[in-house]
Amino acid sequence: MFERPIFERMCLIGIGLIGSSLSLAVQRHGLVGEVVGCARSEATRQTALDLGLCSAVHADPAQAVGGCDLVMICSPVGTYAEIAERIGPHLREGSILSDVGSVKQAVIRDVGPFVPDHVHFVPGHPIAGTEKSGPEAGFAELFEDRWAILTPPPGTDADAVQRLAALWQGVGSMVDTMDARHHDRVLAMTSHLPHLIAYTIVSTAADLENHEQQEVAKFSAGGFRDFTRIAASDPVMWRDIFLNNREAVLDVLQRFNEDITALQRAIRWGEGEVLEDEFRRTRALRQGVIEAHQAGSFDPREPEKASKAEPDPGKPGPRES
Amino acid sequence: MFERPIFERMCLIGIGLIGSSLSLAVQRHGLVGEVVGCARSEATRQTALDLGLCSAVHADPAQAVGGCDLVMICSPVGTYAEIAERIGPHLREGSILSDVGSVKQAVIRDVGPFVPDHVHFVPGHPIAGTEKSGPEAGFAELFEDRWAILTPPPGTDADAVQRLAALWQGVGSMVDTMDARHHDRVLAMTSHLPHLIAYTIVSTAADLENHEQQEVAKFSAGGFRDFTRIAASDPVMWRDIFLNNREAVLDVLQRFNEDITALQRAIRWGEGEVLEDEFRRTRALRQGVIEAHQAGSFDPREPEKASKAEPDPGKPGPRES
Repeated sequence: MFERPIFERMCLIGIGLIGSSLSLAVQRHGLVGEVVGCARSEATRQTALDLGLCSAVHADPAQAVGGCDLVMICSPVGTYAEIAERIGPHLREGSILSDVGSVKQAVIRDVGPFVPDHVHFVPGHPIAGTEKSGPEAGFAELFEDRWAILTPPPGTDADAVQRLAALWQGVGSMVDTMDARHHDRVLAMTSHLPHLIAYTIVSTAADLENHEQQEVAKFSAGGFRDFTRIAASDPVMWRDIFLNNREAVLDVLQRFNEDITALQRAIRWGEGEVLEDEFRRTRALRQGVIEAHQAGSFDPREPEKASKAEPDPGKPGPRES
Repeated sequence: MFERPIFERMCLIGIGLIGSSLSLAVQRHGLVGEVVGCARSEATRQTALDLGLCSAVHADPAQAVGGCDLVMICSPVGTYAEIAERIGPHLREGSILSDVGSVKQAVIRDVGPFVPDHVHFVPGHPIAGTEKSGPEAGFAELFEDRWAILTPPPGTDADAVQRLAALWQGVGSMVDTMDARHHDRVLAMTSHLPHLIAYTIVSTAADLENHEQQEVAKFSAGGFRDFTRIAASDPVMWRDIFLNNREAVLDVLQRFNEDITALQRAIRWGEGEVLEDEFRRTRALRQGVIEAHQAGSFDPREPEKASKAEPDPGKPGPRES
């Protein structure tokens, strides 16, 4: 165990849903001595101070990271390279540089080259979020009972990894460590493809004739509603995820296309057995999800558990806006 | 308004999630004098009696409908034709024959020919359900704040339609009336396509290499989890829905395929603007869903509202098993 506070001063680069939630959580649990931040927009900087998310906020990341023993990048993945180049020279010796991005190989590719030898680079990804965005959306409980995945490159200092893991455990998360490539393949299936499909089906509905489109919203409780929630996620954040996990996403998408084409054919030709068999086998994986304690309760008479299942996609904080 | 009880004796043909919930709801609100039922399996018949869902249950639908002024078919759509042929001659003069099926043109096609002139045929579809199945899964609140759609064929007696509408309003539902073909098109988009896609993506994940498949369940909170819940719906019920709404489902599925192919191409060629624009426009429809009071709250700090959003796809009761 590490004594608290685990870190003297943490810098949040990007103060959105994840950044603000992390600040509230580490303050509640006394995990960090001081939280400073960096946001592009004046409005976000002011909100961060008004809500007590940070003791100080800067527009320039290079200034923000000064004297920090933990720097956490919480902005869209597409902004990482520019931020890394800017902060690299200013990172404190022995400090830890981490992030909350939904893709990890691209993060190592974009950030790695700018990390000084005397800094520990430990990429991370908390699988938690809601469909809401911005610093006002944060809440201290966001990471409780959620997984936080760390993907330290080979040779990363073990103590640094354990120290960062202790921070995530301190806010209530379960921590797992894996290879970045493996992370990207698993998340392409569990998060990226589901989001791409959700965005697509909502888009398909949006193109319906107007009178039908209104009824799609009216009668969305039939299953469509769940997709609209996921499709409300931050557009810039998701654009960057797809651009930066192309190979893995295209692979699972191709598999998905082959599978849905087979079902399409079965419907066209009235092959009931094919449909029924296909629908039956999916139940096993649902059982696996329940056993992995990821399903939550969907019994309306258990609102508490039901709500636990709510926070959706593994979303790092939304863009600094 | 109609005096209560609105119906003297209601017969449930099929006692699954919807049938059992409807029985509990009408009894709680005093809408029906007596509820009798029909189920194929001895186990279901016994459960219906043990839980007080019915005062009497039969294996033969022809016997069950005797003396009933409301007959509600709550079994998978594929069983309707056989049931209609069996009960037609035994339906009480002036009684109402309705159902809870997720498709309506096929129901009119399969049941209509067997309905005597002296019986009012008013097909219906409550857009309510959970991923659970069977008579033990029912609860009286299932239909509260949900839509119930009625699709009476041209020339249907107006008083019969109003009487049935009063029953659904009595259990807390909002009632809308529309043409069966229009219903099938709207539901193909809001319920049938979402289910087909959910079944497919879970199936795609189930085919992953084993070590990856286990992690898909473990890290399903990233968005995948929502799909597994929908994909846990009753296989036979859904087989029958797709076989009986083929034209509308294939149409929206083709539109979906074209849209996801466009996004696939944008990812392959790194067209960020295309992705961002597409992700932005979906937010408008999400807003429409929220305004239609179908979204519910996904803020974990509001478990009550969050739970309200839970009951999923428009599932009529599961098969009599």
